[in-house]
Amino acid sequence: MKTYLEMTKEELLAEHRSLEQEFAKIKALGLSLDLTRGKPSPLQLDLSMGMYDIISSQSVLRTEAGTDCRNYGSLDGIDEAKRLMAGFMDCKQEQVIVHGNASLSIMYDTIARSMLHGVLGSTPWCRLDKVKFLCPVPGYDRHFAITEYFGIEMVQIPMHPDGPDMDLVEKLVQEDAAVKGIWCVPKYSNPQGITYSDETVRRFAALKPAAEDFRIYWDNAYAVHDLYEDDRDMLLPILPECEKAGNPDMVYEFCSTSKVTFSGAGISAMGMSDTNRQDLLKQMSVQTIGHDKIKQWTHTRYLKDMDGVRAHMAKHAALIRPKFEAVDEILSKEVAPLGIGTWIRPKGGYFICFEAMEGCAKAIVAKAREAGIVMTAAGAPFPYGIDPKDTVIRIAPTFPKLEEMKQAAEVFACCVKLVSAEKLLRK
Amino acid sequence: MKTYLEMTKEELLAEHRSLEQEFAKIKALGLSLDLTRGKPSPLQLDLSMGMYDIISSQSVLRTEAGTDCRNYGSLDGIDEAKRLMAGFMDCKQEQVIVHGNASLSIMYDTIARSMLHGVLGSTPWCRLDKVKFLCPVPGYDRHFAITEYFGIEMVQIPMHPDGPDMDLVEKLVQEDAAVKGIWCVPKYSNPQGITYSDETVRRFAALKPAAEDFRIYWDNAYAVHDLYEDDRDMLLPILPECEKAGNPDMVYEFCSTSKVTFSGAGISAMGMSDTNRQDLLKQMSVQTIGHDKIKQWTHTRYLKDMDGVRAHMAKHAALIRPKFEAVDEILSKEVAPLGIGTWIRPKGGYFICFEAMEGCAKAIVAKAREAGIVMTAAGAPFPYGIDPKDTVIRIAPTFPKLEEMKQAAEVFACCVKLVSAEKLLRK
Repeated sequence: MKTYLEMTKEELLAEHRSLEQEFAKIKALGLSLDLTRGKPSPLQLDLSMGMYDIISSQSVLRTEAGTDCRNYGSLDGIDEAKRLMAGFMDCKQEQVIVHGNASLSIMYDTIARSMLHGVLGSTPWCRLDKVKFLCPVPGYDRHFAITEYFGIEMVQIPMHPDGPDMDLVEKLVQEDAAVKGIWCVPKYSNPQGITYSDETVRRFAALKPAAEDFRIYWDNAYAVHDLYEDDRDMLLPILPECEKAGNPDMVYEFCSTSKVTFSGAGISAMGMSDTNRQDLLKQMSVQTIGHDKIKQWTHTRYLKDMDGVRAHMAKHAALIRPKFEAVDEILSKEVAPLGIGTWIRPKGGYFICFEAMEGCAKAIVAKAREAGIVMTAAGAPFPYGIDPKDTVIRIAPTFPKLEEMKQAAEVFACCVKLVSAEKLLRK
Repeated sequence: MKTYLEMTKEELLAEHRSLEQEFAKIKALGLSLDLTRGKPSPLQLDLSMGMYDIISSQSVLRTEAGTDCRNYGSLDGIDEAKRLMAGFMDCKQEQVIVHGNASLSIMYDTIARSMLHGVLGSTPWCRLDKVKFLCPVPGYDRHFAITEYFGIEMVQIPMHPDGPDMDLVEKLVQEDAAVKGIWCVPKYSNPQGITYSDETVRRFAALKPAAEDFRIYWDNAYAVHDLYEDDRDMLLPILPECEKAGNPDMVYEFCSTSKVTFSGAGISAMGMSDTNRQDLLKQMSVQTIGHDKIKQWTHTRYLKDMDGVRAHMAKHAALIRPKFEAVDEILSKEVAPLGIGTWIRPKGGYFICFEAMEGCAKAIVAKAREAGIVMTAAGAPFPYGIDPKDTVIRIAPTFPKLEEMKQAAEVFACCVKLVSAEKLLRK
């Protein structure tokens, strides 16, 4: 099979005509599918409903230590929840603070606090002329929305198959004291599904920042979200590495059960050095009397420990793996041979990141929408929503049913071909 | 019976000797009681355990409108939760945003947002030389902790039996553009149990602030926390009054179910004008994907409506009313006739606020601690923890058992008498 680039103009014109007919047929189907966000499907959510069978009016909602989970207190979370979330982050229980229903809110709040109160006594960022964050791209749009909201300048860092471009990260962090942070999704990155290599993690831990209040924002959102039990990516734990490198305070790690139990009704946590932890607790003692301990109780009783979590995640994997594989298969068959797009086949996480030919992403997403398939806006995985090369499209396969996902992938493949052919014909 | 002021020195000395003996006996009992915080008792928390019988693995966790409560979304809360919380605030459902487990966090966050992003486009407060909040005193220590944390200057406003000194409030709000807010607990105020009169509420609604970004922080924490079903204080709803007065945007109202269902595991809400609401939603869309909707589901299914809430609160009242009455009775018998202390007998809320003779509060709290009764630190109900006259002591009767509360009140009365007698003898 010839790639589009290898085709003559006549061949490409013929291909384009046939694609237009195919697209017209698709449009006539009147599809309506939403692939915008990484949401678990109802069947995935069903997996955790058993949590509500272990609590009733007869439950004794006390912690192992005897604290009444129904009353005020336990600012940093109950011990068993700290222990569970430490397992997600491969850190010590004493390094954990358990929070509310969303790690995103902790990240938001961590930056808001740094803006107004600084970091361990540093100048509050709102008093500085310029604050910069490094943003590996493509990345998570909600990270970038937070930094944008606070007026923080975002510096793009290219992603490589083993993580962010560490040469550039090291240089910028070491040379520029305005660089106060970097957003990372180190395992099954959003949207590419890349897991940082041990080497990358070690280079992160060994950073020599010009700014004393520089922090790595280590959003370990997909810590346990493996698609293959026997072939999971292993992420080197960052907290011990930072300790070994003499940088114990340089990282904030975040995680949650949002895509383990219930999205928006789970628990979240932060892992950090004791110094950072004490700093955070000072703020938290003003901000709240404590997070929801009943939810911590139900989560720890239901998931139990990391073995319980792994077993639970295997059930998730069984539901979503076929969808990931279907997308991969259809794109491998329909798109790959034509030389008009690439992607990394992820071993976990929530996304497949399709890289189209330059200047095609927006048009492909628009075309898909015309056919009733709503995808995440092209550009979304970049700061300010601008993808400089207009190539990246995030596919979220978890929410639709398998048959729907297959259909959507077929439509998507048709749109990729159509837009790519048009692009080449305009040359 | 003579008051202490009417006694001769000899009479007072004799009284003091007898009190010292009494105190020695009390100390020998080795009591250990914690009256520090306004916490519901375990029996009160038991009242809501039925909430966990209406949810199981078989529940269909959908809203009335069909939204899956287990997945992401519904930034402003589910409709039925908005409706329920509107009932707490006597406002329209469309004016409500439902939040997480604590109204305190919403207040913290509202101020953090104003600091960094201003209010409806006003200059962010962090760029101003001076920001002031009016603080009716005695008031809620956690309010003052928030304003202190953000470096906001606190201006004390005396409380009268019908609410804050409105002449002073009107003057300061109208004359000083640095005054950006006032903390209010308008019903069964913390700690005095005062409910603002209709006149006070109307004067609040008609304020003419020098600062366009001035807001009333209307913490309606005890909206439904009446001790007497047939004799409840009625608070004029502020949102409609502000609308009538042409100041629709001037108030943020807060409430929660923390002392209705579970403390720290309930739901909270904010009521406000549509303009303020849109402003808040802009921030929230960056900060979170949405609050816990499963908890909103369980709360609305369990409490149902305001009739349900009233019936539920009557059960709370039945449990705590005897404790309030016991304190009142013991103080009325032991302390009032001696002219050494006053208090308002509250018809709801969580506290009794004892006003000792000037310069005695700290010593009384210290004396009580000596006898094993831990009370809220004297001074706590004032900004920076400093009670200028050293008179105010907050008593929190809800958590201890009735017999414990009686015993604690007896001990407290003895400490008040002892310290007051000592004070008068030193004159």
